Amino acid sequence: MQSSCVDLHPLCEPLRPLLGTWRGSGHGEYPTIVSFDYDEEITFSHIGKPFLSYVQRTTLAATGLPAHAETGYLRAVGDDAYEFVVSAPNGIVEFDHAVVTQGPVFSLEVTSDAVHRTATAKSVTAIVRRLAIEQDVLRYDLSMAAVGHPLTHHLQAELRRSVAPPAP
Amino acid sequence: MQSSCVDLHPLCEPLRPLLGTWRGSGHGEYPTIVSFDYDEEITFSHIGKPFLSYVQRTTLAATGLPAHAETGYLRAVGDDAYEFVVSAPNGIVEFDHAVVTQGPVFSLEVTSDAVHRTATAKSVTAIVRRLAIEQDVLRYDLSMAAVGHPLTHHLQAELRRSVAPPAP
Repeated sequence: MQSSCVDLHPLCEPLRPLLGTWRGSGHGEYPTIVSFDYDEEITFSHIGKPFLSYVQRTTLAATGLPAHAETGYLRAVGDDAYEFVVSAPNGIVEFDHAVVTQGPVFSLEVTSDAVHRTATAKSVTAIVRRLAIEQDVLRYDLSMAAVGHPLTHHLQAELRRSVAPPAP
Repeated sequence: MQSSCVDLHPLCEPLRPLLGTWRGSGHGEYPTIVSFDYDEEITFSHIGKPFLSYVQRTTLAATGLPAHAETGYLRAVGDDAYEFVVSAPNGIVEFDHAVVTQGPVFSLEVTSDAVHRTATAKSVTAIVRRLAIEQDVLRYDLSMAAVGHPLTHHLQAELRRSVAPPAP
């Protein structure tokens, strides 16, 4: 799933700051759970087509055991529009749209258009992610509406790029 | 995404024949496209939780260029029931249920309960996969209802296990 030697698709050029493998740690909270700390690895890679592949996994800081994981694709669909499709082993899939802002701080704001789930998955109805990259540091916040609660802060993390992206 | 040294979750035990990395080739057809041959790699792995991770990618035999890719999770939800959630960079996500049959030939029949898609994705409304494993050979057929056509044969492939699964 690493980025290959092929050129980044022109439609993905605005997404270049995301490329690489990021490692760090975060903190989770929600009205229905005990707060927790976690370690995380995120990889954005490409194969020259108009999307980035996304792979993420966390382990609980307290135990080192696997916690959340998700994979998906960030699709560049033209006219500076991006779609993010993410599936998780908890049976939840997000269909999101993403807005990119360039600058000294690159930012990506990802808002769910729809959240679908399998028959046995927990009820999650909306997810909003705000992600900012400044040089090799990625910070994000994630809010979620779930199990009857409105959009509420859930996750905050800071990661550092540990595998460099390909040069432009 | 490789299988680790942790024990397979008991609910995933019936899925053990799937574990490993599979490589081979296939043939694709559909009323709306020119038929094509492809090479494929599929990996089913686990981390000790009640699901298998699934990663798949193909390249066109004629050019070697990347063609389809998809990732997802095969969830063991108890009572011999399995849910399969698969997302693809074409913007399509399947929510499937799967039926496992054990024997000299292990079989997995996966039927979509729902197919969701992003605003710009092609119209796919149903997908059925029939997968059979006999020792280290995996064969599958995939039918799909798409762009106005009813459920119609689309893919057939044969792969061999190239990375062994962990011992029971």
